[in-house]
Amino acid sequence: MRDGPARTTDERAGRIAEFIAPLRVEPGTRVRLAKDFDPAYKAGVKNKKAGEELLRAGVTLLAEYQRRLAAEGTHGVLLCLQALDAGGKDGTIRHVMSGVNPQGVRVAGFKAPSTGELSHDYLWRYVRDLPRRGEIGIFNRSHYEEVLVVRVHPEHLTRQGLPPEARGKKVWQRRYRQINDWERHLTENGFHVVKIFLNLSKEEQRVRFLKRIDVPDRNWKFSAADVRERGFWDAYQDAFAEMLSATSTPWAPWYVVPADRKWFARICAASVLAHTLIAIDPRYPEIDDKSRAALARERKRLEREAPR
Amino acid sequence: MRDGPARTTDERAGRIAEFIAPLRVEPGTRVRLAKDFDPAYKAGVKNKKAGEELLRAGVTLLAEYQRRLAAEGTHGVLLCLQALDAGGKDGTIRHVMSGVNPQGVRVAGFKAPSTGELSHDYLWRYVRDLPRRGEIGIFNRSHYEEVLVVRVHPEHLTRQGLPPEARGKKVWQRRYRQINDWERHLTENGFHVVKIFLNLSKEEQRVRFLKRIDVPDRNWKFSAADVRERGFWDAYQDAFAEMLSATSTPWAPWYVVPADRKWFARICAASVLAHTLIAIDPRYPEIDDKSRAALARERKRLEREAPR
Repeated sequence: MRDGPARTTDERAGRIAEFIAPLRVEPGTRVRLAKDFDPAYKAGVKNKKAGEELLRAGVTLLAEYQRRLAAEGTHGVLLCLQALDAGGKDGTIRHVMSGVNPQGVRVAGFKAPSTGELSHDYLWRYVRDLPRRGEIGIFNRSHYEEVLVVRVHPEHLTRQGLPPEARGKKVWQRRYRQINDWERHLTENGFHVVKIFLNLSKEEQRVRFLKRIDVPDRNWKFSAADVRERGFWDAYQDAFAEMLSATSTPWAPWYVVPADRKWFARICAASVLAHTLIAIDPRYPEIDDKSRAALARERKRLEREAPR
Repeated sequence: MRDGPARTTDERAGRIAEFIAPLRVEPGTRVRLAKDFDPAYKAGVKNKKAGEELLRAGVTLLAEYQRRLAAEGTHGVLLCLQALDAGGKDGTIRHVMSGVNPQGVRVAGFKAPSTGELSHDYLWRYVRDLPRRGEIGIFNRSHYEEVLVVRVHPEHLTRQGLPPEARGKKVWQRRYRQINDWERHLTENGFHVVKIFLNLSKEEQRVRFLKRIDVPDRNWKFSAADVRERGFWDAYQDAFAEMLSATSTPWAPWYVVPADRKWFARICAASVLAHTLIAIDPRYPEIDDKSRAALARERKRLEREAPR
């Protein structure tokens, strides 16, 4: 990242764009996770302390843009966070969004679907929890689980009650297309879809699991099921790589965020989100002369009221 | 329609397919409503009395197929009913679906959207009210209103709070594509979309409006707003024709049902729906030897219980 404080909005926007460019999955390219994306990459930022100012600047910027987004009320943003267990989804949400007015943020987590949800098409429950115009929605795990965990564990697909013609080998390619179509529909109607994959190394996951066992106030985070899922590491890496390749689109590209350093992952996530908000460029609604005159009249009326 | 009772399921299916063929909008063709579809067409069925047996047969068949659909629990059906005012939507639902178990039918009507609904993309509220697997859902007016009434009265579009880039002249072509994509997603996931336009003549609408004024127990159906909408007749015909041309797809074709004779429109609607259910061919789940043995054991146990 270039040194020195950015002076203008354009300069700031340019720096953010430059900073996140190496994380973007170019639409139409084939991702080889291990080769193309290093979970320990840190873009020349020395350490956590050096990164703190960057994160603070990002969070401040997000808070300001969210206020404008809400005031304008025409665009919405959907941030999809995907990661393997211990990838840092919860911490990222907490650190990146904590400066933003919670009234303008809608977080939805997706765990195992209910029987009622399973009786609908697989995208149905994600549609229900979409953000409104003026809001930033965050999916803590998202519709991408439908081509990740459901793919690695096909028994989940069985439970979805699909008719025979909707199963078969082509189901994943079909779902990629359906998801791309849906995200295009959202984008074209003013809802920008931002997609972040927190890319953790296998060794760092081991370290974090051990910490969850050894540190008492992290015990609640530990689950033996997570360690079982670790046994499917390679299958997940393949599913992620294919999904990233097939669903990084011009309207909703994927960003692969290096997640071995939590502090760096948070800077990246804040920057990716800021980049989208800057591109939307929401404005406080302007007031015309007539409305301004009305405001002046109301002001007079309030002044004339006798103070109690 | 060929004479004499159908003997086999295949024969019955063949007759229904033949009967509804002239109503189908062939995908990729350009519809000229006044030229291609006669609101008074009755396919050689002499009169209401002659049609009654046909309707009864259709309703019985629907009831049977709905039971199978619910038992199988993998497919769903969505019937979209579109028409101008007094086109006969309510009566069609009542007469066609009254023999079907209401537990397997989900009817949703769509009037003016709420503020909360307007803060989402225009398809959001329709997704929310989709049928589940095993159900027949009926949309009394549907997402097609978004390219009909919203097109004829652009002030509705203004209220949808779209960002500038989502408005403009291309909005209708874009919506056609988005709707086609969505319906393909539903179909590919086991939800068949059946689309019926009740095609009423301008003169028959006048007659029905007069009846609503003259017959006291129909007064509640009359609204001066409906007569105002009649003033936009030509604009609606154009919007319908373009919509039918653009959204009749191989996976979800439109049927233009002649609506000047209510009794005939109902036969057509029942036939179109029956055609879809026959194509789905839902089956009662088969029981394997193990489950059959379990049933036998449970039977014994219940027999052994002393009667009180």
